[in-house]
Amino acid sequence: MTVSDKSRQIRAAMRQEKAELVLKNASFVNVFTKELMKGDIAITDGVIVGICEDYEGVKELDMQGKVVCPGLIDGHIHLESAAVMPVEFARAVVPHGTTTVVTDPHEIANVMGTDGIRYMLEASEGLPLDVRFMLPSCVPATPFDEGGAALKAEDIEPFYQEDRVLGLAELMNYVGCVQQDEDVMKKVTDAVNHGKILDGHAPFLPGAELNAYVTAGVYSDHECSDLEDAKQKLAKGQYIMIREGTAAQNLKALLPLLMSKTADRCMFATDDKHPSDLLTKGHIDYIIREAVKGGVDPITAVCAGTCHAARYFNMKTKGAIAPGYDADLTIVDSLESFQVQTVIQHGQIVFDGQLCDIKTPVIDSELSREALDTFHLDRVSASDFLKEGSLPLIGMIPGEIVSKNCGYADGVDISKDILKIAVVERHHHTGHVGIGLITGYGLQAGAVATSIAHDSHNIIVIGTSEEEMAAAVNALIELKGGIVVVKDGELVAGLPLPVAGLMSTVSLEDTNRMLDEVKEQAYLLGVQHEIDPFMTLSFMSLPVIPSLRVLTQGVFDVDAWKYLC
Amino acid sequence: MTVSDKSRQIRAAMRQEKAELVLKNASFVNVFTKELMKGDIAITDGVIVGICEDYEGVKELDMQGKVVCPGLIDGHIHLESAAVMPVEFARAVVPHGTTTVVTDPHEIANVMGTDGIRYMLEASEGLPLDVRFMLPSCVPATPFDEGGAALKAEDIEPFYQEDRVLGLAELMNYVGCVQQDEDVMKKVTDAVNHGKILDGHAPFLPGAELNAYVTAGVYSDHECSDLEDAKQKLAKGQYIMIREGTAAQNLKALLPLLMSKTADRCMFATDDKHPSDLLTKGHIDYIIREAVKGGVDPITAVCAGTCHAARYFNMKTKGAIAPGYDADLTIVDSLESFQVQTVIQHGQIVFDGQLCDIKTPVIDSELSREALDTFHLDRVSASDFLKEGSLPLIGMIPGEIVSKNCGYADGVDISKDILKIAVVERHHHTGHVGIGLITGYGLQAGAVATSIAHDSHNIIVIGTSEEEMAAAVNALIELKGGIVVVKDGELVAGLPLPVAGLMSTVSLEDTNRMLDEVKEQAYLLGVQHEIDPFMTLSFMSLPVIPSLRVLTQGVFDVDAWKYLC
Repeated sequence: MTVSDKSRQIRAAMRQEKAELVLKNASFVNVFTKELMKGDIAITDGVIVGICEDYEGVKELDMQGKVVCPGLIDGHIHLESAAVMPVEFARAVVPHGTTTVVTDPHEIANVMGTDGIRYMLEASEGLPLDVRFMLPSCVPATPFDEGGAALKAEDIEPFYQEDRVLGLAELMNYVGCVQQDEDVMKKVTDAVNHGKILDGHAPFLPGAELNAYVTAGVYSDHECSDLEDAKQKLAKGQYIMIREGTAAQNLKALLPLLMSKTADRCMFATDDKHPSDLLTKGHIDYIIREAVKGGVDPITAVCAGTCHAARYFNMKTKGAIAPGYDADLTIVDSLESFQVQTVIQHGQIVFDGQLCDIKTPVIDSELSREALDTFHLDRVSASDFLKEGSLPLIGMIPGEIVSKNCGYADGVDISKDILKIAVVERHHHTGHVGIGLITGYGLQAGAVATSIAHDSHNIIVIGTSEEEMAAAVNALIELKGGIVVVKDGELVAGLPLPVAGLMSTVSLEDTNRMLDEVKEQAYLLGVQHEIDPFMTLSFMSLPVIPSLRVLTQGVFDVDAWKYLC
Repeated sequence: MTVSDKSRQIRAAMRQEKAELVLKNASFVNVFTKELMKGDIAITDGVIVGICEDYEGVKELDMQGKVVCPGLIDGHIHLESAAVMPVEFARAVVPHGTTTVVTDPHEIANVMGTDGIRYMLEASEGLPLDVRFMLPSCVPATPFDEGGAALKAEDIEPFYQEDRVLGLAELMNYVGCVQQDEDVMKKVTDAVNHGKILDGHAPFLPGAELNAYVTAGVYSDHECSDLEDAKQKLAKGQYIMIREGTAAQNLKALLPLLMSKTADRCMFATDDKHPSDLLTKGHIDYIIREAVKGGVDPITAVCAGTCHAARYFNMKTKGAIAPGYDADLTIVDSLESFQVQTVIQHGQIVFDGQLCDIKTPVIDSELSREALDTFHLDRVSASDFLKEGSLPLIGMIPGEIVSKNCGYADGVDISKDILKIAVVERHHHTGHVGIGLITGYGLQAGAVATSIAHDSHNIIVIGTSEEEMAAAVNALIELKGGIVVVKDGELVAGLPLPVAGLMSTVSLEDTNRMLDEVKEQAYLLGVQHEIDPFMTLSFMSLPVIPSLRVLTQGVFDVDAWKYLC
């Protein structure tokens, strides 16, 4: 901040010159007094310079009949999960009043390592959405993952120099933390020594382990699905990120937190937001609406969507409507119906019924080329999916991402809904293909494949025959990533996700249209309607979720922590 | 923080090894859930590593029948005002449960400049009291002051490198700030750019000016004596430091803040604490007791004395009893009577009925010599206090530090309680002596003088004759600072304050005994009992308080902002 910038803001505050923008006659949420206040809000240089006094502005907006809130903040998201580039994500969420998101580029880092982090930093620069970063702490998720990269403490440490990096992202490896694994401890102490924040991820971590985890400096958790678990964590000093996203919805279970003395230690997060969910429900505005419907005081709900996150992340000038704060504002019709009318980001009107022009950030060409070329494997053939003898049988459970261990079976039997599942390594030309059987998916013909495959993002394929599986994987390689449905060896629907195999290059609406189409085709081929054909599939290779998973080297028993074949 | 330190703490948290100290069966204040909780508190390496689980300790203390609170924090104090060295201050306040103070070395900086700041940093290093610093922002207080130093932005900026420096101290020059004075703006932006805190000092600053002041980044105020003034400031984002010290007591007026939704934006501060006040009342513990007596919920009162200050100052690991937090703990008999039993600082028992041994910090010898040699003036004689013609007459008001403009008088007239007052420049051998008359003080014989004279700390003297005044000033020069009472040219009582003319080198008790003696002698010589003979006097040269003040160059009309003679 320069003396001349700050002096100009003060001149506007003093009415020695006109403010750049004045919201006249505003009713606004004062997060300090926790009440609605009335009066002008004056803005200059992207900063709020005055409230509750009469101001004249070069531009003035009448706020009669509306309510001005601080801009909404998502405390934890993986932007890649929206399957679009950050610029498209911004286009989608700005009209919902989101002005800041804290992203963990964990997905792309599993594909591209630190280049993935750099890519996301560049791809989110200068948007009308403030994108802050937490550094992926657990790449790969386990030693059994064959991902695109492995990030050690020394790989991520230099990123703390970046202005938009707030800390270390969800420390999923809580076991490594409480057992004092050297690299985990290095990541922890680096974050602390840089004065940064450490996000947690430790569902139901009990007593002494939770003490140890928090002692490490992990002061948040977004994995609470249970009120008692959340209360334990609150009592030990963790902020609770109440998650209401696509893959997990915890608001209902945690609503009582927002009606108690601990409300000020709670914020909102989505973790994953998929295209259709963003388009149909909204973002943080949706969570606020749901909380209010659930009986939460609207001002408390707004605070959870704004200032509590700002305080936790030490974003000093965000989350409030007060002098010196960033002019990030979300203007709604009323606190109860919370329909976003106008959005101001850094003092600029970025949505007013109409979205402002958004310039696509320029990404370093070398990095961009690298992101568009992340499939390092040869075409496959049916024989790659053959394996002698019986194979472990994974049982999918409708509406869940956990799976059952269903013993062994001899091979595909469509009549019994026994299909073949495989994970094809795609990062380092290893030729590894892990093969198993799966039941509960329902496919009757063809094959489906996706390169969104947590967390290593290899290629997962399920098919009714080895030939169809090979066709699906080859179609996906052709697209350089995405989601495909194949029948009789031909592509019947495909969503290209050429950026690291995770993100499309088109708009959220178009991406969603294609995603609907691949889903529709998957259902037409018999996939059970209780299952999301690709989201559920995308977790089938994540070896931290019980019971059986398919990895690049075979079927893995998570409970026994070993390969079955 | 090193990996091995943090790993050791985690091992203790995990019960893989014994904690160094365990408080067994503790009832403790959980500032997050805002309730009393029960259970063990385990400490290793000065850090709380576990709560609410059974722990074994190398040392264990039974907490039955006691309540454990976070260590108490004073949000704003000038340590020099206790008239003793920081080590003696620590000896006095640790038994009252204070574990952290945030000091502004404004007094000594007016005498010794940046060397004064360095001196206080060294003099408070390694105490069983965490002394944090705010950098003096307004030295001198006005352009009319002739102090020992003038601190520009570039003089104080290097101190932001010091670990214990938290920000820029009370920005008393709010006029300079809202009028964008170049040096003030440089100080403001330096603090912001270093990610530091800016304390305010702006009683009753109205509307747009307050907006401008807060826009600068000033997010606290400790000058509120009026509830409405405090509410305005809270609404604009300032934290309120509820001040209850020796010179000003605002708790009663501001109690309602602690019984409203804004309680979490309030903390406690003393600003100035004089020896007798510390000895008879206590410190932050006293304010908590008074607040509770006034009807404040005891847990809210504890939060105001602990975590709210920690949060405002971004002292991330202070102010709570939770894993990873500093083991600064104040153990009391009950929340209601709040009598301190035991104090733990950085995991060490520093008071347990008995105070621990406290090592006196070693101060650089050059700096020490400089601090003991701050009287740069020659002996004075009666003729130095003579001035032709009539002189402005200052009216003292019992119980106030403001004064009245009583016109002019011709000279001393003891029968009418008209005495001579003078301020003798003592920093730079200028020979300046400002002379006026004063009424309302009551002295009937002799003279009194003090080198505690806000803010420049020249020598203020009041006398019944020029000879007595000269004797008093010479006695004070002899002592190298302090407070003296003289009768018939002879010293009748004296408190030596040889360190910068502000602090004694003996204990608080001894200092207080001598202070009582000089006061007693002053009262014996006729000083009105409604007036504190030296505290009131010490403000008579501070030209920001209406109406008349004596400066080194004459009587100053604060309302008219000019010299009268």
